[in-house]
Amino acid sequence: MKISARNVLAGKIVDIKKGATTSHVQIDVNGKIITSAITNEAVEELGLKVGGEASAVIKSSDVMVMVS
Amino acid sequence: MKISARNVLAGKIVDIKKGATTSHVQIDVNGKIITSAITNEAVEELGLKVGGEASAVIKSSDVMVMVS
Amino acid sequence: MKISARNVLAGKIVDIKKGATTSHVQIDVNGKIITSAITNEAVEELGLKVGGEASAVIKSSDVMVMVS
Amino acid sequence: MKISARNVLAGKIVDIKKGATTSHVQIDVNGKIITSAITNEAVEELGLKVGGEASAVIKSSDVMVMVS
Amino acid sequence: MKISARNVLAGKIVDIKKGATTSHVQIDVNGKIITSAITNEAVEELGLKVGGEASAVIKSSDVMVMVS
Amino acid sequence: MKISARNVLAGKIVDIKKGATTSHVQIDVNGKIITSAITNEAVEELGLKVGGEASAVIKSSDVMVMVS
Repeated sequence: MKISARNVLAGKIVDIKKGATTSHVQIDVNGKIITSAITNEAVEELGLKVGGEASAVIKSSDVMVMVS
Repeated sequence: MKISARNVLAGKIVDIKKGATTSHVQIDVNGKIITSAITNEAVEELGLKVGGEASAVIKSSDVMVMVS
Repeated sequence: MKISARNVLAGKIVDIKKGATTSHVQIDVNGKIITSAITNEAVEELGLKVGGEASAVIKSSDVMVMVS
Repeated sequence: MKISARNVLAGKIVDIKKGATTSHVQIDVNGKIITSAITNEAVEELGLKVGGEASAVIKSSDVMVMVS
Repeated sequence: MKISARNVLAGKIVDIKKGATTSHVQIDVNGKIITSAITNEAVEELGLKVGGEASAVIKSSDVMVMVS
Repeated sequence: MKISARNVLAGKIVDIKKGATTSHVQIDVNGKIITSAITNEAVEELGLKVGGEASAVIKSSDVMVMVS
């Protein structure tokens, strides 16, 4: 299975915070924490757990660039 | 200056590909390449150059999670 | 492999229009045409071709609702 | 009224799940269920109800492609 | 016709820049210029022209907040 | 600090509605109300308060165009 999204960043889940309908999942990718907001339903269906392996997937059109 | 986006990933620009209106900018973040699609105008205004420092900025609602 | 995106719509590619950096791919899903704008690079890497099977993947936070 | 979004998929609402600020609305489009995450405010303002007609609206830059 | 997007900003088109597949449309809303990147196809289908009236439509989950 | 997002709209916060994980922040920009859905965490980290100055930041690929 392959996806068109240019950014597939493998890591390990370090935190899951469930809300009423939306969960925040944090993935440690090479020491950088990536935060993802997904549905509670997805968290359950994918069986996400702290300590489990997971990738953050991001479409390139959703990535901005910032310079200081 | 602070932004609400939960993901601000500092790195170095390794590639810039200009299209007719859209450019693809690649940033090396801790050895992971992040691809961003932004306007040509932004590339010019920010003075982006290969080798320069830049951060990839991503809103958490734009991050999906994938498991194998 | 499983993705958190709630919308994975299987269909058949009916058109690919390549631009300078961005391609438009049309997928026929149950008779409805879904248009996707992705990088040329993704089109090549996934080996997308008219007539091939493919799914449109959409995060639920990117879906709006309209009523008449 | 016309919108630039390339994907306007007419269907019928089959489920509405209200959270604290975000609702998940499911629309049956030709037998495929599309899930949308929108504000509670929008659900009320549009008078969305299970059984009512509604379209899912998706910008083409928010559609990814996946192949197996 | 009503859309769930919380931000519908009426204004006047002040610039259209066509690329290979993507156009950049600028709308003057109360003296603020809003830039939109949409498909060339949408520009044609909606008959967008400099000087014409148009609204910028933005889903609230696509709006970030920045403070200095 | 500069960001590639083409739309940075300065204004004043007029409302903050906190949910379980997601907050809705309203910014008055030249008399137009812009609604943003961000994480509760961001609201706290940025110290957002009603009456405070803030900018709405929107990537041009997230802006649609509508005509009547």
